Amino acid sequence: MIEVTHSQGKYPIIFEPLQNALGSLPEDSFVVTDENVAQHYKTTNQKTLTLPPGEQTKSLIWLERIAAWLANQGASRKSTVVALGGGVIGDLVGFAAATYMRGVPYIQIPTTLLAQVDSSVGGKVAVDIPEGKNLVGAFHAPIKVSIDPGTLTTLSKRQLRNGMAEVWKYAFIMDPELLAKLKTHPDDLKPIIQTCIEHKAKIVREDEFETEGIRAILNYGHTIGHALEQATGYRKLLHGEAISIGMVIEAHLGEQLGITQRGTVDEVAQCLQAEGLPTSYKEPLPPEELIEVMKRDKKASRGNLTFSLLTQIGGCKLVENVPQNEVLHALKKL
Amino acid sequence: MIEVTHSQGKYPIIFEPLQNALGSLPEDSFVVTDENVAQHYKTTNQKTLTLPPGEQTKSLIWLERIAAWLANQGASRKSTVVALGGGVIGDLVGFAAATYMRGVPYIQIPTTLLAQVDSSVGGKVAVDIPEGKNLVGAFHAPIKVSIDPGTLTTLSKRQLRNGMAEVWKYAFIMDPELLAKLKTHPDDLKPIIQTCIEHKAKIVREDEFETEGIRAILNYGHTIGHALEQATGYRKLLHGEAISIGMVIEAHLGEQLGITQRGTVDEVAQCLQAEGLPTSYKEPLPPEELIEVMKRDKKASRGNLTFSLLTQIGGCKLVENVPQNEVLHALKKL
Repeated sequence: MIEVTHSQGKYPIIFEPLQNALGSLPEDSFVVTDENVAQHYKTTNQKTLTLPPGEQTKSLIWLERIAAWLANQGASRKSTVVALGGGVIGDLVGFAAATYMRGVPYIQIPTTLLAQVDSSVGGKVAVDIPEGKNLVGAFHAPIKVSIDPGTLTTLSKRQLRNGMAEVWKYAFIMDPELLAKLKTHPDDLKPIIQTCIEHKAKIVREDEFETEGIRAILNYGHTIGHALEQATGYRKLLHGEAISIGMVIEAHLGEQLGITQRGTVDEVAQCLQAEGLPTSYKEPLPPEELIEVMKRDKKASRGNLTFSLLTQIGGCKLVENVPQNEVLHALKKL
Repeated sequence: MIEVTHSQGKYPIIFEPLQNALGSLPEDSFVVTDENVAQHYKTTNQKTLTLPPGEQTKSLIWLERIAAWLANQGASRKSTVVALGGGVIGDLVGFAAATYMRGVPYIQIPTTLLAQVDSSVGGKVAVDIPEGKNLVGAFHAPIKVSIDPGTLTTLSKRQLRNGMAEVWKYAFIMDPELLAKLKTHPDDLKPIIQTCIEHKAKIVREDEFETEGIRAILNYGHTIGHALEQATGYRKLLHGEAISIGMVIEAHLGEQLGITQRGTVDEVAQCLQAEGLPTSYKEPLPPEELIEVMKRDKKASRGNLTFSLLTQIGGCKLVENVPQNEVLHALKKL
């Protein structure tokens, strides 16, 4: 068990079979999941709402539908909301729990690698609006995160790789030992998930609200990654694919600025390619449009661009006020 | 100046002319107001968004529009959002500030009596959904509340009475001295606003998240009042009018249950009638429908009804598990 402490208390991250997690939910629980997950796992005793899968569901329209469902089912302030699914379900349902009756307890049961290693831990919840990803959201810590690596067997290879992008990110920004392990392409993902969560839990303990410049290092690859996701309408690239490309381009940017050790781009790109992840985006995308999206990014301030950049493989730092022309130059490597 | 302390810090409530408040806003401010307020007060240096007035605007659709506007105007995590208007603007814009980029600072400049004595203080923000009033929201403390009783001169008599309902509520639940003063119908509202805010600030300090059974006493008249508002589609009754009726019916309920001193109903009703506020609702409303709305109320738990009931004029207590048939009986007095 890993414990995450935060401003309002603490919560455990427990590795257990999914059926145990579902079987031990409080009686007054309300489960929200999506159609993909519902194909594989059935809740028995709990009231369950099943949503269409995909990033398009992460909207205020679906937030309202979840709140309406909770109200109609009689959910009170003391009820527990359960997010059963991947990152979209975790973010959307967590935000519904953060705001229904001004906040009710919720449990994260992440069923994708991406959600298990990253989004289910740390209490960041949000929905997208057309102007930007995760632009409307909250910090709302779950009361428990329950992880079953067994659920990963139902994922497609593309979905697994999607999560591996975040795993590689932890290796690149802070963990040379993890990097060495990943290069052996191990079959058993449980210890790897554990390592990633331990990193995340430590960072969240130190900087829950991303105000200290610590949590923001987790955004390596994400400033450009988010812009790519948005510029392609959240349809062509999965999150992990977008940040895979983002990590390569941001390594270019770092080398260009003299912040990242030379040769890092090549190593980052080789690792990601060996995983089967994309490292470039060949369809035409106007770089100026990407810059505009980045300026609206939460990490930006008054249009100044902030990046988490590698210093070398295994280390990184937050760099503010990165000049636009440098970013434009790096984007030529797309 | 009155200071409100809360879990994340503290904020001042300052009495000052509106033009001073607007003139001293941070440079990076984004003002949201409504058409009624914009008729009277012009912002000069700040980017300003003007919304249609009325409870219908307190929706997730308008929340999204505010967030889109903030994003398009380049508002960052460090920008300040300003809610300039009545309770609807305060609740909606406060919720937008609570959720835009997972929370940005905001200033409340309440321009109605209702907002000045009640909703602008305490950090409760929310929007309505068809299933219930304030069902989706957050606790998000402002960084400052700026009050100018001079703005009340532009209010209609009905709008003033609307706010007076909340003022009488403070008198009924906790302040016999205020009650005596109100009976003289004083012209100068400033000291009265100050008294109400002091009460509210004290209660919020003690029970910010309404979990200790202290803040919930402020809901006197509100369980039935909210149900009336919702059952009439937020169109026929202003909030203060609905809670005026609610206070009378809940006084009946309290007398019925032996919790409220006999004779209290009459005194409550006389005070409110002398103010010109309604104390009954004569159009047909199925009581069962009102009960269903109350069961979905945030104060309810698993369908059990909770009320803040007077013990006598000047005192009250929270009563849980009030039997439905008692509530139905009290509703006959509508």
